[in-house]
Order: sequence, then structure tokens, then C-alpha cells
Amino acid sequence: MVKFPFKPAFAPAALALALSLAASAGHAADAGHAAEVDPRIGTGGDGHTFPGATVPFGMIQLSPDTAMPDFKHAYKWAAGYQYGDTSLLGFSHTHFSGSGHSDLGDVLVMPVAGEPKLDPGDPAQPGSGYRSRFSHDSEKVEAGYYAVTLSDYQVRAELTAGRRVGWHRYSFPAGQPAHLLLDLRPSIYDYPGKVLWSSLRVHPDGAVTGCRQTRGWAPGRELCFAMRFSQPLAARHLYDRETDVAYKGFKGPGHQPEDRDAQQGRAIVGVFDFGQLKQPLQVKVAISPVSEANALANLDTDGKGWDFDARRAEARAAWDQALSVVDIDAPKTERTSFYTSLYHAMLSPTLSMDVNGDYRGPDNAVHRAQGFEFHSTWSLWDVYRAQQPLMVLLQPQRSVDFVRSLIAAREASPFGILPVWAYQGLETWCMIGYHAVPVIADAYVKGIRGFDAKAGLDAMVASATYAPYGGLGEYMQRGYVPIDKEPEGASKTLEYAYDDWTIAQMAKAMGRGDVAATFAKRAGNWRNAYDAKTGFMRARKTDGAFREPFNPDVAGYGSDYTEGNAWQYSWYVPQDVAGLIAAMGGDQAFVGKLDSVFDAKVDPKQFAHVEDITGLIGWYAHGNEPSHHLAYLYDYAGAPWQTQKRLKQIMDSQYAPRPDGLAGNDDLGQMSAWYVFTALGFYPVAPGSDEYAIGRPFVAKATLHLHDGKRFTVSAAPFDDAHPYVGEVTLNGKPLDRVFLRHGEILAGGELHFRMQAQPNRNWGQAAEARPASMSAYAR
Amino acid sequence: MVKFPFKPAFAPAALALALSLAASAGHAADAGHAAEVDPRIGTGGDGHTFPGATVPFGMIQLSPDTAMPDFKHAYKWAAGYQYGDTSLLGFSHTHFSGSGHSDLGDVLVMPVAGEPKLDPGDPAQPGSGYRSRFSHDSEKVEAGYYAVTLSDYQVRAELTAGRRVGWHRYSFPAGQPAHLLLDLRPSIYDYPGKVLWSSLRVHPDGAVTGCRQTRGWAPGRELCFAMRFSQPLAARHLYDRETDVAYKGFKGPGHQPEDRDAQQGRAIVGVFDFGQLKQPLQVKVAISPVSEANALANLDTDGKGWDFDARRAEARAAWDQALSVVDIDAPKTERTSFYTSLYHAMLSPTLSMDVNGDYRGPDNAVHRAQGFEFHSTWSLWDVYRAQQPLMVLLQPQRSVDFVRSLIAAREASPFGILPVWAYQGLETWCMIGYHAVPVIADAYVKGIRGFDAKAGLDAMVASATYAPYGGLGEYMQRGYVPIDKEPEGASKTLEYAYDDWTIAQMAKAMGRGDVAATFAKRAGNWRNAYDAKTGFMRARKTDGAFREPFNPDVAGYGSDYTEGNAWQYSWYVPQDVAGLIAAMGGDQAFVGKLDSVFDAKVDPKQFAHVEDITGLIGWYAHGNEPSHHLAYLYDYAGAPWQTQKRLKQIMDSQYAPRPDGLAGNDDLGQMSAWYVFTALGFYPVAPGSDEYAIGRPFVAKATLHLHDGKRFTVSAAPFDDAHPYVGEVTLNGKPLDRVFLRHGEILAGGELHFRMQAQPNRNWGQAAEARPASMSAYAR
Repeated sequence: MVKFPFKPAFAPAALALALSLAASAGHAADAGHAAEVDPRIGTGGDGHTFPGATVPFGMIQLSPDTAMPDFKHAYKWAAGYQYGDTSLLGFSHTHFSGSGHSDLGDVLVMPVAGEPKLDPGDPAQPGSGYRSRFSHDSEKVEAGYYAVTLSDYQVRAELTAGRRVGWHRYSFPAGQPAHLLLDLRPSIYDYPGKVLWSSLRVHPDGAVTGCRQTRGWAPGRELCFAMRFSQPLAARHLYDRETDVAYKGFKGPGHQPEDRDAQQGRAIVGVFDFGQLKQPLQVKVAISPVSEANALANLDTDGKGWDFDARRAEARAAWDQALSVVDIDAPKTERTSFYTSLYHAMLSPTLSMDVNGDYRGPDNAVHRAQGFEFHSTWSLWDVYRAQQPLMVLLQPQRSVDFVRSLIAAREASPFGILPVWAYQGLETWCMIGYHAVPVIADAYVKGIRGFDAKAGLDAMVASATYAPYGGLGEYMQRGYVPIDKEPEGASKTLEYAYDDWTIAQMAKAMGRGDVAATFAKRAGNWRNAYDAKTGFMRARKTDGAFREPFNPDVAGYGSDYTEGNAWQYSWYVPQDVAGLIAAMGGDQAFVGKLDSVFDAKVDPKQFAHVEDITGLIGWYAHGNEPSHHLAYLYDYAGAPWQTQKRLKQIMDSQYAPRPDGLAGNDDLGQMSAWYVFTALGFYPVAPGSDEYAIGRPFVAKATLHLHDGKRFTVSAAPFDDAHPYVGEVTLNGKPLDRVFLRHGEILAGGELHFRMQAQPNRNWGQAAEARPASMSAYAR
Repeated sequence: MVKFPFKPAFAPAALALALSLAASAGHAADAGHAAEVDPRIGTGGDGHTFPGATVPFGMIQLSPDTAMPDFKHAYKWAAGYQYGDTSLLGFSHTHFSGSGHSDLGDVLVMPVAGEPKLDPGDPAQPGSGYRSRFSHDSEKVEAGYYAVTLSDYQVRAELTAGRRVGWHRYSFPAGQPAHLLLDLRPSIYDYPGKVLWSSLRVHPDGAVTGCRQTRGWAPGRELCFAMRFSQPLAARHLYDRETDVAYKGFKGPGHQPEDRDAQQGRAIVGVFDFGQLKQPLQVKVAISPVSEANALANLDTDGKGWDFDARRAEARAAWDQALSVVDIDAPKTERTSFYTSLYHAMLSPTLSMDVNGDYRGPDNAVHRAQGFEFHSTWSLWDVYRAQQPLMVLLQPQRSVDFVRSLIAAREASPFGILPVWAYQGLETWCMIGYHAVPVIADAYVKGIRGFDAKAGLDAMVASATYAPYGGLGEYMQRGYVPIDKEPEGASKTLEYAYDDWTIAQMAKAMGRGDVAATFAKRAGNWRNAYDAKTGFMRARKTDGAFREPFNPDVAGYGSDYTEGNAWQYSWYVPQDVAGLIAAMGGDQAFVGKLDSVFDAKVDPKQFAHVEDITGLIGWYAHGNEPSHHLAYLYDYAGAPWQTQKRLKQIMDSQYAPRPDGLAGNDDLGQMSAWYVFTALGFYPVAPGSDEYAIGRPFVAKATLHLHDGKRFTVSAAPFDDAHPYVGEVTLNGKPLDRVFLRHGEILAGGELHFRMQAQPNRNWGQAAEARPASMSAYAR
């Protein structure tokens, strides 16, 4: 067990120290992986990543927006940027990386040379608004840095980011007056009435602050900001562009002074004039989920001075440090894919706390963190699978903060439960399950300490027993979620049962046998969803019968499943794969049925109505999370060579170092974390256990630099397409005749070597005890 | 000079001490004036007072609402209650006392026996909503207590208040289920879209909290609240009644638990069920301008226990204590008028600070008070005249807080200036002038200390030199506000010149001769508004000529004046009445012209388009503030008997102890403070000087109990209608042959006696030095 007392994760001094430690630990030569990141990956197609500047888990995602999409276009433009676009309307400070639903795009600024127009205008009619065309040729896209030339203004725009501060440098053409436009109207997933209120204020010292309250995915969300300019303000113009309101304040004797330094309303635009500039205009912007005063404190504490290049170097150093946890031997293309995946896996949860420790909880009230840093942006249905386990392995110090943030959020929950899908502290209730539970359990079982485990277990139990949530009352009463009471009953039953098992795992590790027994029993509820007659997981009705008619191909709303169909969801028993194999008729039947999933001929139009089901290989949908563990299930049925084969199929077809190189939404790093684990040769099929199913490496060599200075190396030879199968595995030189690895074996340091061969080795990993454990195994 | 270091003004312990001190000071026998208050006065006609429960300067004004008026009806229902109404829709916690424009009516609750309807319904159709009929016979209206029987439900409703907590006691009929409805939709001066956002939450311990943000008179104002019930909640139902919105949050997998303990939106209604109750339901509600957490802290700190009767007694004791500053000898009717006036004069500014010292400033940001209590609700155009001077005299400890609150507000002003018309810390820009300036100057000149005088003077100068406000730039350049650049130029020129004079007074007292000289000079700008040809104050244009055509009868928007005409506004030179008399041709001409104002035959329809001009005696409009000093001006022209005569005319015709007994809006106590001063026999014509013009008493005897235990007695004899004129005045037994009194003479304690007679004494107060000082006098 390793103990991680709290330390500020990224104070400059700590960074310097960490870098020097890294150097002394001997892998300084390997530093510099930030240069191998290509943030354009996923910005085309449906990856929904953003190309802009951010630091690991930072509060700021400063990125260009080619659209602030309305309802109809919100899916495709969920990150505000689509690689196919040719104009952009500005740079905003908050973005999700790879979400399906969306929001954000806060504090949009646009540099304008010449007379500024006050509306963004139509992309189809250049010059109709403040929007500018741009060319990808002019873009420079790096980890922590983004630059582009706005061709309509001939302005060179450069962006970088600190943890709470976005940094801008705008080089204006000579002879043109320089303006910065700040538009508080648009946001991602826009619709009339979304902006509830906003305010803008110019302080006597030239600082600009404001807040905006919106009713988006997290209704009533308020974000405040503070902004400073490197050049003196020649003039400012604050506009209220609202036209459809009955009452605009007091009409009678007296009136507000006309030269307004402050403005509030629902459609506020500010234009800041700097005259003709001889040097670039620098702008720094901090945000706060709490108040303008906090935003200003964030700005003035975290954002001193005007050295853009130094800030850019710091952002780069932060990425170099974060990415230095793994070194690989691989060709350039794979290196780009690998480090960009690792980069994408380190974007969330994001810091959501001001320098004074203030944060906003799901009660929308302000709380103060004591001894930890509050993080939010929790796409939990996705990230509990691989992204969070990857952080437990590679960023265990961060995991302490993540777990403490979850527990803190629960303590501020009006419902007394852990987050479901939260950002900026607020709950959206998106997706299903109580998957903060496996995040905490996985961390605890793998030795993460430094949080209040009792409070964690309490929170987990509270979340698993909160009857009004998603049919949980029925589930607790019947052992399944009846479809006539609650939609998507099959998925919910299965995911609840898995989450329950992770509670039992943590309770057992804590010596809480009572809790462990209760939830170990609930973990068997997956059996209530299994229909032996059809061989699929299905939803039952209140009367106990499965719902009819049944078609295993049908997915989406109204079906038994969440973003999936029976082919995809019938494998969701990560806690008891042995039990599932037995239920399905044994190894051979199981493997045959899995093969039928991958080998099916499926028309992708089948899923046209469910946006997230993409990346198809047969019924297997790599673009969405319910499929993510499927390829590893062969391991459990004595067919590890099929795992190896399917992984190669997926790695070859579903990832490419191109803008459209992601098969589906990156989902806040889950798709990317899958890539990283798989490339390293193992995967956490059941977070909450300390075991990883072994696949095969997709790099010739990888060295993990563990928290305490130890190294764990994975290597494969011969490493080429002619040798896709595992012949033998050795751990520290000794043959490993099992298809799983324990977390402790990695933490101990050492070398895992894969002898690769052209043909499957049907003898490796065949013993029952060679398979990853499962509930049935534990019961044995 | 008297020094008042800060002390909490109304902690229970302090109250007990104060009461015991009062007893030992010997006027305990006179305690109990609260019983002589009739809060119904002003609730009919256009008094715009509210009948509900409040304590002196309290944050809570818990009062019944017979209407939450829309734009068209907002003037008449400015306090939410009109005496002529026969049904009410509930009890809300915030009200202005006597305002013209309006807002508030926050946190409306209604007890309902039987099945509750969710909308208020139509008053013309009883039973169409949750509204209930009531009869005045069932009302019990006292200082600090209000009760009524809701006849549609047979519920007896009782209300009382602490400083931050409203207390409710509802007795339900037997056999009917008891409900409390909380409606976050309506507010005073209502219009579609006024509620920007609101939230409601039931905590595990049964506490209910929420916030509401509105765009009313102070746009973007947020008020939070916390509520507890004396009986356990049997059930709760939180509704979002909004129907007109495009996006209602995330539509996809997952959803918020159905049994919602929290709700947010723009049309939130909560219904709380208590089943059949054997004892009354008590409810306590605290508010906070900052946050739900602060509201809860206010509730749990200031509102312990469930003893409604004890809280009612405390409210009564608070009023007894506040009103104990004056004892009078007078018949019951006059006593009611007097103590109700004193009560109305002690309702604002209201406490606007949480128990932890948090308050919201005009920047809408949260600040923390250090060593004082932040107050807001500043109807400054009104209250600087008599209400604030009355507090300087009778509640000097409070004045320290009031002045510190003004200075603190200035420090948080985005414009760097003092409040104009503010509430809950926020600015409305209503009315004209910078009349926080005379409030501070008056306090300082009369010896109030305990605030930072330098910061005060800085704030006054900043407010008087902020060019963008109300034509101040032009005024500073030209010595008048040109009507072609700025509306109501004559009124603004006159009021600015007076305010300037008060800066000079305070600067002089502080030994700041430089500042004094500058503003003494500006104080003479009234001359730029005087048109010797017509004998009226008029507005000039930028070219220096008076605007034509000119009609002295014309008032209102577009005229030269603010809520007045030339007849009313031409007397506004309180700082230099001697100069005005000279300009108008000497004493006789001046008196003749004043008489022509009072004796004119004026059709009240003349002012039908200006709501505030009411209470007419000729052109004299006692219902609005520009007239308030007129009757006292005879003193300055050697005709004090005319002052005496006009005062009797006003007192007899403009005040009555009836619901419609106020001639116009009470204007946050200004109308009432005029009554109190006038009843005592003197009036502060020019706040900022230490002089009061002497009128005549309207009580046989009055004893002021001063802060340091001294007493000052005013008496009159013979005191009856047959002896309306002053024959002689003695101060401490010595004849006083002047028509003014100094503040220090009152503070010293003693007796001012008026020998009254049937006919005017044309010899009293005739010497030049017998007249109140003025700028001209100071210049002499």
C-alpha cells in the first residue's frame, strides 16, 4: 500500500522540484513527450475533442470555436470546433473533451483589427460579422499551445494556458486599430433564453470582470471571470443587445450615468479599444465558479506578469512532466497516437476550485476545500472503466484529489449521493449507474490512501441505496430494474450489480464484512437480467417476465438498453465473467457467441438514431463504452489468442493520428485511456479488483515511471505484424502462465516480457486459475 | 461633540440592558409606545405603507399581499397591500414602506387548509386559486405583529418578526389537512420574465432553502432564504410551472430522481404537507442577500426555538425601546398619529447584512462589514430632508451605522460614488441629486463620530464631481445643468447646489478649507437657475438663455423640474434662504409669493400625469418632498406666524390616523419624519447646518430622551385650537427671541417652552440675527 499525503499538485516550485526529481530518477532524457502530442486528433469526425490550450486537469480549456451550435448541431460541435470548418468566431475558455451532450464555451473573445462588428455573422457570408476565416496551414497545435492566423483581420492569435488562467497574445497588422471583442451571449448548445443573466464591469485599474449564468446542461450554472490587458485601454464600449424584454429597469427621474463602466443583462457584448499597437496585445483571463472577486484573485495569484513565452514554456513543461510517466519504443505514428491518447486521458476531471479553496458543489452553494483540490467534470459512465484506473496507476497523487472531490461532492449533494455526470460541481443526471462507486473502490483496492475511506464507503452505500434514483428502489426490492417502471432496465440492472460488487470489494478490504456481504449478494443480480432461453441480457417487467417482443438488434431509447443493444450489453458482467460463461453454456459457446458479435454483418444505419454507437466491427461498437471490455473477455474463456486478435483488429481500424482518427466521442479520455492500456498490453476489465486482463503490447517497449521512482517495463519481441500472437509471457524473467496481472506486481517494478509469435499459442493461460478472478472465483 | 463607538444595536442581551437602563433612567413608566402605533395608517390611498410585522430597521418586512401588481398597478400596490382589497394571496418577507416605484414581495407563503391550488387565482373569482378572502374585522395590526383570519380556509394567520427572521403561526381548522404553499413566481411590480432564476431545496433535516434572482428595479438582484417548520413534513411537492421554454435540461439516458428534494427554474412552487395538525404550525424564515448558507446561518443564529409569543414580545419590546426616545402629552388620536409617524420613520434604511457580516454592494459582489452593520434601502432624495436628521437626533448610534454603510457602499461602487436610490446594496439610479452627501454632512456637523470622516468627505467630493452622472459634467463647467443636454435641469441645478453647500459645511468643520471654498462657491449656483424676470427658478439651455416657452404650472417629465413645477421648486435654496429672499425682492414680496403658493386655486387634475404630486394646498403639495420645507420659509422672512399658520393648515388636513391618512407616499419615512419634527415644534430646513427652524408644537408636551440620558422637553400652553400662534418662546426659562434652535441646545438638555396665544405675535423673531442662518448669513 502506498500513502499519498496531500501536496499541491502543480505549484511552480513543486513543478521545478518534480522536474529535477524526474531528471535524477534517470528518465530526463525521455522528457519532452509533449512534443509528440497532436491535439488535432479527434477534432474531426465525432471525436469531439478541442484543439486549444490546456494543462493537465486544468480549469481552463482555451480553444477556438468554429461554431457555438444550436440544439440541432450540438452533437457534432460539442467541443465548439470541427476540423472541417473554415472560419471561427473566437476563443472561449471552457470546453469538454470528447463529450456527447454538451455545454460551455464560456467567455468568448475575438481580436478584431479595424471597425468591429457586434454579431458573429454567418459563416457562409464572410464579413457579415466578427467571425474570421482561417486556414489549417496557419494553425500551430501543440500540447498547451494553439496558434492561428485570422485571415479576415491578419491577426496572429496565440493561446496558452495555466491551471486557472488563459493567456492570449494577439499580433495586429500595422496601421489598424486593435480591438478585443468579448461576447457573453453565445455558448455551446445554444438556444434562446439560455443566458439567464450576465454582467460585465471595467474596474478603475483596467481589469474587466463579469459573470454569466446559464440554463444549460447544468441549469443555473454561473461562471465568473476576470481579465487583464497588457496594453492600456483607449476606450471601452459595453452593449446590451437584448431586444425582447418588457422591462428594462426604472423609467423615471434619474438614470444611470451614460459612460458606463458596468453593464448587465442577457445579451452583453464588450468592445475594448487599444488604438494602433506597436507590440502584440496580451490578454490573460481567469475564471471562477464562485465569484468575480475569486476570479480576480485567481488571475492575480496564478497569472502574474506578461511573459507569454514563459507561460507557454510552463504549459509545455507541465505536459512533459505529466506525460513523462511512460516512455515507449515505437515509430513516430504510434508515438503520436500513444502520447496524444495519454494527453487526452489527462484532461479530466478538471480543477474546479479557486485559489482560496472555494468551490461550488451540487447544491450550487459555495464550499471550501480543506487539504485537497476540488475537481469536477465527471463523465463517470465513461471514465470509471479505464481513464480513472489509468490515473490510479500513473497519477496516484491526483487520484487522491479525485476521490476526495467525489466524497466532497457527495457531502454537498442535496440527494446525499455521489456525482453521476457533473461539471463545475453541478449535477446533470446524464447516463446511468452510480459509477463514482467503482472509481473510489478501484483507487482503494489498488492502495490509494489519503482520503477518508469510511466517508467514501458511506457515500458509496448511500448512492447504491438511494431509492428514488433510476429505479433503485425497485432494484433493491426485486433484484432487477423493471422495464415497465423504469427505462433501460436491463442496462441498469447490470451496471448496478457491477457497482455493487465494487462496494463489496472495498468493504472487504476495509474489514467491513457486513457491508461486503450485502453488496456481494446484490452483485449477483446480473443473473436476473439473463434470459437463458435467448442467451441475452434482457429487461424484466414488474411481474417477473421478460418484456416481449424481443429483438436483440434494437438499441436506444425505449429499448432495454442504454446506448446499446442486446448484442453489446449481454457481456456486461465484469465482476463475474466466469459466472457469465457458465450461464452461456461454457467456454466454447461463450467464445462462439463473442465471435458472432465481432463477425456479424451489420449495417451502420442500424444505429443512425443513436448518436453514440459508432466504430462498428460487427455488432462491436468501439465508439461507445459498453463494448470496451469485450475483446478482453476471451481471456476468461481460455481463448487469449482471440483477445490478441480482436485487439489488433480494433487498434488497426479504430485509431489513427488524424483529426478524424477517433471512432467515436473520446468521452473525457475513456477512448484514449483504452488505447493507452491496450498499447501497454493489459486492461482493467473490472475496476475494483486489483487485476488487469493481459492482452498484448502494441509498442515494442514501454517503461512506466511509477510514483515512488520504481520502473515497470513491458516489452514485446519480435514486434512486428508477422508476430501478432503471444507465445509466452515472463514477469521478471519467470514464465507467467496466467492471462492477468496484479496491480501490486506493477507497483513492485520489474519487467513484463511478451515473446510474440506468428500463430496463436493455444496452451498459454489455459488453467482455471490462469484466468482473471471473478465473483465466482472468489466464491470458490 | 458626542462620540458613538460601534456597538451591536439590537442583540437580545443589549436589549435587556437597554431596557433596564431605560428603567433606571426613570422613563420606564413611559415605555410601551408600541401599543400606540397603528401600522394600518398609510395602507390605503397612496401612503404605500405595509401593515405587516417588522422591527426597527429590520431586514424582514413580513406582510400580507393583496396584490403582486403588474406594471399598470404597481404604483398603487407598491407595498403589496391596499386597504380596500378583500382578498390576499399570501405573506411575503420584503416590502418598501411608502415607496413610489417598487419591487420586492420576496418569499411568498400561503397556508392552505384542504387541497391546495397552485396559482393565486383571480380576486374577482374567489376559490379560483390559492388566494383567500379576509375581513378587516379579523385583522390585528400592531407594531411587530399582524394577524388575520383567512376566511376561505378558516386559518388564523399570525406574523411577527426579528431582525433577520420572519415568524409565522398558522392555526388550521380541525379535520383539514394543513399545507404551506411557497410561490417563488410573483413579486411586486411583476412582468413576464422578471424572475431570472430561482431554486428551492428541502434539506434532510427538513430545512427549506432557496434563492431567487430577478430583474426588477435593481436588475440581477438575488435574494436567498431559509425556512424551518415546527411540525414534521409529511410530504413535499416541488413544481416547475414554466411552460414557455425551449430547453428543459438534458434529454437522454439518465434523469434526475423523481422524488425531488430540489428544484430550480423560473416558475417554482413548493407545497409542504403537514397532515392534520393538533397544534398550530409555526414557520420561521430568514433571508440573505448573499447565499442560502448565509440565510440558514441567519435563521439558526437569530431564530432559535419555537416560541412565537416570546418572539412577538421581543418585537414589541424592540419597538417600545425605539419609540421610548420621545414621550408626549397628547390625546389618543394625536398619540396614534405621532407614534405611528415615529414608527414609520424607523423602518429604513434596513439591515442588509448577514450574521457573519456579509453584505452585497452596488457591484453586486459580496463584502464583509468590519465593525459596523451594513444597511441599505436608501430613498435618499426623500430621507435626507427630515428622516435621517431625525435619526441623528433620536438614534445617533444608528446614524453611525448608516453613515458607515453609505461610505462602504461608495467603496464598492463601480462608479466610485455614493448611493442614489439603493436597496439590498444595489443601485437603482432613481431620482436626482447626490443626497447621501447631506446625510453624511448632517451627521458630522451634529457631532456624530465613529466613522472615517476623511473617507466620508472623499466619497462626498467624488459623488459631486462624477461628470457622467446627471449632467454633473455640464454643471461643473457652466454652473447649471442645461436642459437641452439633461432633463429636469432646474431641479438638478438647485439640488446639486444645496448638496455642494453641505460638503462645504462638513469640510469647514473638518478644517478642510480648500474643499470648503470650492463647494461653498458651487453652492451659489442656485442663482443660475433664478429668473428675475418671472421670479421663478427655471432651466437654462447650453447657450445660457432660459428655455422657452415657460409655464410655471407645468410639471413632470419634459418640464424643467423633477416631480414638481415652478411654483413648487422655486423655493429650493435651503442653504441660502436669505439670498433667495433678496433675489425675490425682500421679505414682503417673498411672503406674498409664498402665500400665493398656498392660497392658489389649483385643480388637482393638473397633476394627474405625475403620480407623486398629491396632498395639495394651493400649489403646495405635501404629498411630495419638494414642498416639505416651504411652510418653514416664512420664518426666514420675518413672518414666523405664517409658518405657524401654514403648519396648522398642513397638520389638520394632511395627516389622519386612518388607512388613507397619509397625503402621499410615506417615502421610507420622510412624510412621517416631517410630522414628528413638526409636532415637536422645529424642523431641519437645511440638513448640514446645526439649526432647526422653529414652528410650533402640536403636542402639549414632549420629552426627548437623549442618548446620554439627558432630557429635552418641549411644552406649549395654553395648548388648544383657540391659541394657534406663538406668543413667546423660552429656552430653560430664558426668552428666546429667535426662530431657530441649535442642535447643541437640544443635546444639552433642558426645556423649550412655547407660550401660545390667539393672535400672531408680530414682534417675535424679527431681528436679522433671529432668523436661521444661511449661506448669506455665514458670508456676513
